[in-house]
Amino acid sequence: MEIIRSLQNTQIKSAGKLRDRRGRAQQGRTIIDGLREIRRALQAGFPIETMFVLPEAFSGPEPAEFEQVLADHGDVQILHVTRDVMEKLAFGQRVEGAVAIAKIPEKKLGDVVLPECPLVVVIEQVEKPGNVGAILRTMDAVGADILISADGRTDLFNPNVIRASLGTIFSATVVDATSEETIAFLKNDQFQIYAARVDGSVPYSTVDMKQATALVLGSEAHGLSDQWHRPGIVNIHLPMQGIADSLNVSTTAAVLLYESLRQRS
Amino acid sequence: MEIIRSLQNTQIKSAGKLRDRRGRAQQGRTIIDGLREIRRALQAGFPIETMFVLPEAFSGPEPAEFEQVLADHGDVQILHVTRDVMEKLAFGQRVEGAVAIAKIPEKKLGDVVLPECPLVVVIEQVEKPGNVGAILRTMDAVGADILISADGRTDLFNPNVIRASLGTIFSATVVDATSEETIAFLKNDQFQIYAARVDGSVPYSTVDMKQATALVLGSEAHGLSDQWHRPGIVNIHLPMQGIADSLNVSTTAAVLLYESLRQRS
Repeated sequence: MEIIRSLQNTQIKSAGKLRDRRGRAQQGRTIIDGLREIRRALQAGFPIETMFVLPEAFSGPEPAEFEQVLADHGDVQILHVTRDVMEKLAFGQRVEGAVAIAKIPEKKLGDVVLPECPLVVVIEQVEKPGNVGAILRTMDAVGADILISADGRTDLFNPNVIRASLGTIFSATVVDATSEETIAFLKNDQFQIYAARVDGSVPYSTVDMKQATALVLGSEAHGLSDQWHRPGIVNIHLPMQGIADSLNVSTTAAVLLYESLRQRS
Repeated sequence: MEIIRSLQNTQIKSAGKLRDRRGRAQQGRTIIDGLREIRRALQAGFPIETMFVLPEAFSGPEPAEFEQVLADHGDVQILHVTRDVMEKLAFGQRVEGAVAIAKIPEKKLGDVVLPECPLVVVIEQVEKPGNVGAILRTMDAVGADILISADGRTDLFNPNVIRASLGTIFSATVVDATSEETIAFLKNDQFQIYAARVDGSVPYSTVDMKQATALVLGSEAHGLSDQWHRPGIVNIHLPMQGIADSLNVSTTAAVLLYESLRQRS
């Protein structure tokens, strides 16, 4: 197989642009780092189009793992590259030997098919990809159904979200929407809506999460917007007894998600 | 007040070495970034010795906050520095205008005074300072009493731990020990010891955390060592239903800590 050696190669230049939000939006694609993440994408049927591979990374004692990935690859275009090229494509200093390019699915709130007794997480204006990914990782663990990013400040298929989610994002249902659309959607489907606020009046462990439940979390810096102050939405809080006045948003999500799992099992 | 302009100044050089674990061990001191963190250290009576200040950072509209810090400073030596010097002292690109140098308290397991029905967290060989700090932040929120770092892979007063804890570490009781010492200590004081393992046999929400309770968590990469497999130690797990096989250690800690708070309130 031919090896791509030039940083000026068209496909390499396009792929490099996927590190920026603008490049992802323009191309409708994202870039996936890490063999585990790539394998999870393939297993979930996520539309990977191209895989860039550094052959020498798989000539050592660990080719078996990669062979399994290749065996799963289906219609993926495989392109070999030199180390220089891979270092340009890979995240930071972590050259694992493969990165993949995939189409970003365009899913809308209206396309979502709800299961029985759904458990939905809404994050409004959350900024840090690491937090979005950590929330997806916990959602995977508890079997939560859908993540809605309301008025999102980061794109859901940001490579840093993918990495922090350990690739669980590929088997998750994730949707972008506005807060208004999200509220209309949840009300229409008669969700119990629990908005997590530092000054929420109801302790989280006293509300019923066994019915169709939406857990709503606000941004790291400002919490939830006023749009979520309305009749029928219950403001809940996690008790806090110390000197700090807030928890990390992914910590809050984990506590709420495991409470819902506890109630449901 | 005189302004330190030289990167070769003895105090500046010593302070710079506190970014490395070896420097902290040799000097028995650490370096604190951030006004909030410095204020929390002062409020907790943490032994800050020196504060390096960039005066121009406090000539704008926000000097009130800093004046409050100064009003609290007690016996702290205040040294003004130039921007060049502050950039050398500060973490990464975040120049907030002040860093502080403090003595690290030498607390041993034998010095610990236990409250009624203590809630203790043990972390064994946890490596990432961000995880240690996040656990401290949640411990502050639920009012947990003591963090024991068993066979620690990071020093507890690593500046990255301090930052991730939002300065809650200064009002916490934190101790280094070996796993053997920790087990002896917990058994001697008749703790219920719950070891979190991916393959633990008992669901976490079914055990009693109302008595003296120790929650034990292992390293990010390897989980708990075999030392914690012994009679009287209950292996608990968080149910996981998805494709990923583990949770982040600080997420696990948060779920367990809020479960203990739920049971205790």
